[in-house]
Amino acid sequence: MNIVTPEATRLGWVGTGVMGSSMCAQLLAKGYPVTVSTRTRTKAAALLEAGATWADTPEEVASNSDVVFTMVGYPADVREVILGSQGLLSGARPGAVLVDMSTSEPALAVEIAERAETLGVHTLDAPVSGGDVGARNATLSIMVGGPREVFDAVRPGLDVMGATIVLQGDHGAGQHTKMMNQVLIASNMVGVCEALLYAYRANLDLESVLASVSGGAAGSWSLSNLAPRMIANNMAPGFYVNHFVKDMGIALAEAGRMQLSLPGLALANQLYVALQAQGGGANGTQSLIRALASLSGLDWERRSET
Amino acid sequence: MNIVTPEATRLGWVGTGVMGSSMCAQLLAKGYPVTVSTRTRTKAAALLEAGATWADTPEEVASNSDVVFTMVGYPADVREVILGSQGLLSGARPGAVLVDMSTSEPALAVEIAERAETLGVHTLDAPVSGGDVGARNATLSIMVGGPREVFDAVRPGLDVMGATIVLQGDHGAGQHTKMMNQVLIASNMVGVCEALLYAYRANLDLESVLASVSGGAAGSWSLSNLAPRMIANNMAPGFYVNHFVKDMGIALAEAGRMQLSLPGLALANQLYVALQAQGGGANGTQSLIRALASLSGLDWERRSET
Repeated sequence: MNIVTPEATRLGWVGTGVMGSSMCAQLLAKGYPVTVSTRTRTKAAALLEAGATWADTPEEVASNSDVVFTMVGYPADVREVILGSQGLLSGARPGAVLVDMSTSEPALAVEIAERAETLGVHTLDAPVSGGDVGARNATLSIMVGGPREVFDAVRPGLDVMGATIVLQGDHGAGQHTKMMNQVLIASNMVGVCEALLYAYRANLDLESVLASVSGGAAGSWSLSNLAPRMIANNMAPGFYVNHFVKDMGIALAEAGRMQLSLPGLALANQLYVALQAQGGGANGTQSLIRALASLSGLDWERRSET
Repeated sequence: MNIVTPEATRLGWVGTGVMGSSMCAQLLAKGYPVTVSTRTRTKAAALLEAGATWADTPEEVASNSDVVFTMVGYPADVREVILGSQGLLSGARPGAVLVDMSTSEPALAVEIAERAETLGVHTLDAPVSGGDVGARNATLSIMVGGPREVFDAVRPGLDVMGATIVLQGDHGAGQHTKMMNQVLIASNMVGVCEALLYAYRANLDLESVLASVSGGAAGSWSLSNLAPRMIANNMAPGFYVNHFVKDMGIALAEAGRMQLSLPGLALANQLYVALQAQGGGANGTQSLIRALASLSGLDWERRSET
């Protein structure tokens, strides 16, 4: 099997959103030849300027690549891009490797692996966490599922994009690990929002209380990074509400399939669905504080007026 | 007003549990003279050996002290020790300062302040976070409510016990800040437990997934410090379930009084009440995973047998 090096390996990339563009740019910067395709060609402009080659379809990307990475939005997009009529599997030659870095369904990762295997094509599921900042700085955590030898072969490419790269098990295990990550975030976000609301209603100074609680047993990444945005009424997306609702839906469906009751995740999911219902699906996940405030008849961003 | 120094200030201490003993020992080690009392004299033995003077009642402590610290279990204990017939206020002279470091009710802190003021006695509420380790290493976060000049006067004594010491507002603000701290912990603990259960049911390696998720957006103190204990089936108390249920009860009552709906806190509280109902009130808060496992018919500590 190929070891991924700039000299020996032709890479492909499908999906050039905020995350995908930054990750693909890292590979180009290291000298890898990359063939790229995405739904809207203008979104690939910066990558094409940086030296990437355009392809009209995923099928065409695959026929020009040894290893193809995909980073798209929803499981339906993953299915279309890999298994669709002009998808990667239509163009991939035996021995090629497909690495899906989208956050998607564990069961779909297994289905893709089975379909690919009949063609002699290898696959990995390799979703990431770390957000746009992690993608730009190549500090992502990459959670991988699939065979050890396939992981070892593409590891040099993953090392270009991330800092914490762990093979978690067979096909689907990367997606399951990402789901676990989202389960952690979901309930913690509820706690962060409720704590800020409590502090506000108790007439505490919000920035001052963060100084008391952030460094101890109540501390978390979300508290340190997202509570200040909530306090500043900054609801711009680092991570979209719509994408988080997608992830929680996958996790709840998987949990149901595994006969596992997760009431905290279910509560968080419903509060985020409320944000969508109120038209806020394109905001950042920190806007959860709006939904929790609205339960008590509060308008968080107008709190200073009351 | 006195500035607290070993030369000029006679200290008092009431309540010598795990936290109080370590905190009082720090003051003795700095050379402060301390008069101590607690319900069970044998629990003060180490402090008496270290040079503390015994008093039979809080009243007697107060009559021998310029500044008295209290660290007891429940609001009823705070009331008894400070306002009771042999309480601190019966013995305190005008100009004395009472600093309650127990986690207790914000409204009780205000009531104590009002009663003390009629006697010319000053008070602060100053609950802590950081646990037994923070108490032993003097790295506690101390959250203070009360007048600035009283805070400034006793600050040197607080500096001996803690690392992060912030005046959060007037009487009660320290307790409110501690409540906010507990609101954060409550929902995050639900997330940590649900995430481990998800990972277990998805057949992931629990220690390996922590390596993928602990350093990023899902990271928290509880994940890094308590998830490993859950994995090791170590339910020994760092912080008691019974005490956490007390704290969440206070926070929910205050939130209700402030007309604030906190569904995540309410859910966490009910799951911890389930632990008490199952006889586990004297375990550590990480035992929450038992309650969440039991929802799905799982026995967490026997998971390897299934």
